[in-house]
Amino acid sequence: MTTDQRDLTEGFLFTDQYQLTMSQLYWKYGLHERTAQFDYFFRRYPDYGRHQAGYAVFAGLDWLLDWIDTTRVREPDLEHLRKQHDFAGRRRFDEGFLSWLAETGGFGSVSIRSVPEGRIVHGHEPIAVVEGPLAVAQILETSFLNHLNYQTLVATKASRVAEAAAGGPVLEFGMRRGPDVGANAGTRAALIGGADASSNVGASSAMGVDPQGTHAHSMVQLFMALGEGEIGAFRAYAATYPEECVLLVDTIDTLESGIPNAIRVFEELRADGHEPIGIRLDSGDLAHLAVRAAQMLDAAGFSDTRIVLSSELDELAMWQIRAQIVDEAPRYGVDGTAVLHRLTYGVGTRLITSQGHSALGGVYKLVAIDEAGDWLPAMKISDTPEKMPIPGDKRVWRVYDNRGLATADVVSGGDEDLSSGDSIEVYHPHREGIARHLDGIRDVEELVVPVYGNGERIGSPPSLDEMRKRRSLDLERLDPGVRRLVNPHVYHVSLTQQVKRLQGEMIARERRSD
Amino acid sequence: MTTDQRDLTEGFLFTDQYQLTMSQLYWKYGLHERTAQFDYFFRRYPDYGRHQAGYAVFAGLDWLLDWIDTTRVREPDLEHLRKQHDFAGRRRFDEGFLSWLAETGGFGSVSIRSVPEGRIVHGHEPIAVVEGPLAVAQILETSFLNHLNYQTLVATKASRVAEAAAGGPVLEFGMRRGPDVGANAGTRAALIGGADASSNVGASSAMGVDPQGTHAHSMVQLFMALGEGEIGAFRAYAATYPEECVLLVDTIDTLESGIPNAIRVFEELRADGHEPIGIRLDSGDLAHLAVRAAQMLDAAGFSDTRIVLSSELDELAMWQIRAQIVDEAPRYGVDGTAVLHRLTYGVGTRLITSQGHSALGGVYKLVAIDEAGDWLPAMKISDTPEKMPIPGDKRVWRVYDNRGLATADVVSGGDEDLSSGDSIEVYHPHREGIARHLDGIRDVEELVVPVYGNGERIGSPPSLDEMRKRRSLDLERLDPGVRRLVNPHVYHVSLTQQVKRLQGEMIARERRSD
Repeated sequence: MTTDQRDLTEGFLFTDQYQLTMSQLYWKYGLHERTAQFDYFFRRYPDYGRHQAGYAVFAGLDWLLDWIDTTRVREPDLEHLRKQHDFAGRRRFDEGFLSWLAETGGFGSVSIRSVPEGRIVHGHEPIAVVEGPLAVAQILETSFLNHLNYQTLVATKASRVAEAAAGGPVLEFGMRRGPDVGANAGTRAALIGGADASSNVGASSAMGVDPQGTHAHSMVQLFMALGEGEIGAFRAYAATYPEECVLLVDTIDTLESGIPNAIRVFEELRADGHEPIGIRLDSGDLAHLAVRAAQMLDAAGFSDTRIVLSSELDELAMWQIRAQIVDEAPRYGVDGTAVLHRLTYGVGTRLITSQGHSALGGVYKLVAIDEAGDWLPAMKISDTPEKMPIPGDKRVWRVYDNRGLATADVVSGGDEDLSSGDSIEVYHPHREGIARHLDGIRDVEELVVPVYGNGERIGSPPSLDEMRKRRSLDLERLDPGVRRLVNPHVYHVSLTQQVKRLQGEMIARERRSD
Repeated sequence: MTTDQRDLTEGFLFTDQYQLTMSQLYWKYGLHERTAQFDYFFRRYPDYGRHQAGYAVFAGLDWLLDWIDTTRVREPDLEHLRKQHDFAGRRRFDEGFLSWLAETGGFGSVSIRSVPEGRIVHGHEPIAVVEGPLAVAQILETSFLNHLNYQTLVATKASRVAEAAAGGPVLEFGMRRGPDVGANAGTRAALIGGADASSNVGASSAMGVDPQGTHAHSMVQLFMALGEGEIGAFRAYAATYPEECVLLVDTIDTLESGIPNAIRVFEELRADGHEPIGIRLDSGDLAHLAVRAAQMLDAAGFSDTRIVLSSELDELAMWQIRAQIVDEAPRYGVDGTAVLHRLTYGVGTRLITSQGHSALGGVYKLVAIDEAGDWLPAMKISDTPEKMPIPGDKRVWRVYDNRGLATADVVSGGDEDLSSGDSIEVYHPHREGIARHLDGIRDVEELVVPVYGNGERIGSPPSLDEMRKRRSLDLERLDPGVRRLVNPHVYHVSLTQQVKRLQGEMIARERRSD
């Protein structure tokens, strides 16, 4: 991609065509500057086939806000819109509309409330809310979804991978199989969601995290081609990086060549006054090889070295590997728990592509339009009740029970305040007649808070550390059943009576009017 | 992402950490400027679970070459490398190495041969070959893989979707669920691989294709909230875009409200001297609704209007929908074939994420290193014969039989010329003792040709049209069994005797040396 192409494809025209055609229609009908409200939410958690998420980790907001803050309508963008013609050969976009776009200049006129980045979020609840001139908020839709859907998807997967690692370090290795430069967003999301570090040099540097990596098979192949063999490659590596010596042992044969050669080099390194860090296994039966490697390293006096596992890992593969290690270790006279404690996980393709569920279905739906200072609720009717957004101006609350665990998220009307009181009556978001009482409430927290307004960000961007703390605090306050990797408990997202009633009235009204 | 972050994450440091640590080792051992040769290839075609590809469409090369051509080692990149320290607190990268990087300046010293972009490619054969100073070619690996793997993955999926559309127009709609700005690469790949157009305004504009899109549910919701109903929204749309009126009919109820309202507006439009273009169905049983829509539109005298289908489409869903339409149409007195001919397909999430197989496993492997002007072959040994790359300097040929169909791709030694002769003896790439003769050869074409050298691209970048023509010509010359969506025939990629012998010798030598 050339620089011109990049400016064109990543700027104001980073949107779907229908956002522009609709906006021109709004302009033509004098509706373009009516204040509208759109909700960002998803309906279903990622479902990877045989396992599924019970929560999501919200990510992508900071880069989205940077995009909103810096994107401008540029003359070359307008030039490209001028080039569009309809089937009759007339220009598709009126010069008056383009002038209005040029005057508007960008997205500075919207205001955004959102769940803070890094926090746990759930299906059906508004995660971010955009308010602004109808046509501006409409054009924003695509970029909004694009920035939030992918990072939330990958952060959620990373959180699951970290759960499976049970405290062991997780390294994100997916860049080579990641989606073009979108891989950087994937790395960022992985770091927010649960990865401790990444091999991606640029993205790690930008996030202030030390990039991780040692050597590939190619280095061993090279020394082999030059007649110095695997041992020659290992010696060169140890000499170059004596303090961080991790050797990849599967280029020829892990048990017959790689580990014995690594042990020889580790002994030489130790004789030289340096402690080796570990080995990496990148093929074969990783559980079996980890046990055998531990056995051999222990016998040679290297019981503290790490064993880094990589090759098509994901949360289920890691879970299986850990179980197999515990089963198999005693047969080799090895302490299985000790093996688990020395594992580090390099997780690549399956994390950065969220394999099994490769897109979060987040949507951006019109929920209200300003009518002389009041919010007129809007709604999409559907035969599938689940698919109907929650209409109107709203607030979102997280309710903590007397154990301090999050017990439900509640969506209220914009004028309702749930922050006090120890009992709330709530309703199912898309089934009828299901009410329940939330009792024994210890705390109620408002989730969706202002993050952008008056053309600027509200507050400074959170550090990676802050986002990670939000995630781990939210995870601690989540029922363990909801965190489960397979068949998780369903976390409740409920509506107040006021919101439920509005929803019911709107469905009845629209069905009558047909 | 800020501008500084973008420069940092998309430039020279768009690589994996181990490429830099290995390169420093090569520098330390005086190997960094030895000329090395790396092959880019994949082993397995995408396998989407119940269906799988029998070929791939190669894409991503042009944007990769732009990246190679323009990426420079910048002072801020080096500054970030200076910030890295090892566990003992010493700087990880030597100033001498960083000076060498600064002098090298970028990737201008490599030369690249490749299959031209848009062509059909197969497993195990070199698709692109990089020659250059070892350390430079090594650092390039990650970006090389990243740019080619994702676009080839999506172009392949797009080709399958186009096969399923059987000539009907395919529109790429995936941006909102695509991977951050990587979505632009996805759009580009879809356009190369089989999509006729895209909703992505920026990427379409950059590729010289008219972006496609009409309106969303939100426009209908808005007019409903304002009391003007679905019909009000449709009238406004028709008035704004009389020559390109496509109406989305499922906001309330497709059969009861959407289609009858669309027909009223189409009649008004026609009375005004304009022909409507069509309707779009975005939910429900698309096959059934398409038949019913055709029936209603026919009865109203609009038998030429298009029926655009969208909502979780992929090649299998489209195949099923087309079959169901043919089955179901007669029951409603509709000609099924006529319905098929008026379909347009909007394909989103499942195309841009290649759902079911979300990453192409392309790799970049050292195959030879220069030794005093000769190529010394290099190879990774593995217990899995399939995983062993084909060693040494090589050429790749496509053999056409006397029907003019591609019958096999053959990998020869770098000094072998297969362009003449009507019989070639070939060997299986990773099984032993399987030889066969390719007879009745009409033509042999060299596939991998120079595309970059002496710091610049060779020839001008191909237009989208050229790339699409390459694809369709290659598809026409492919056995229909290989193009099949489910259980495709296996296309043969074979080795010449010389290459097979070298492979065998190297395996024997490495196994002996252990």
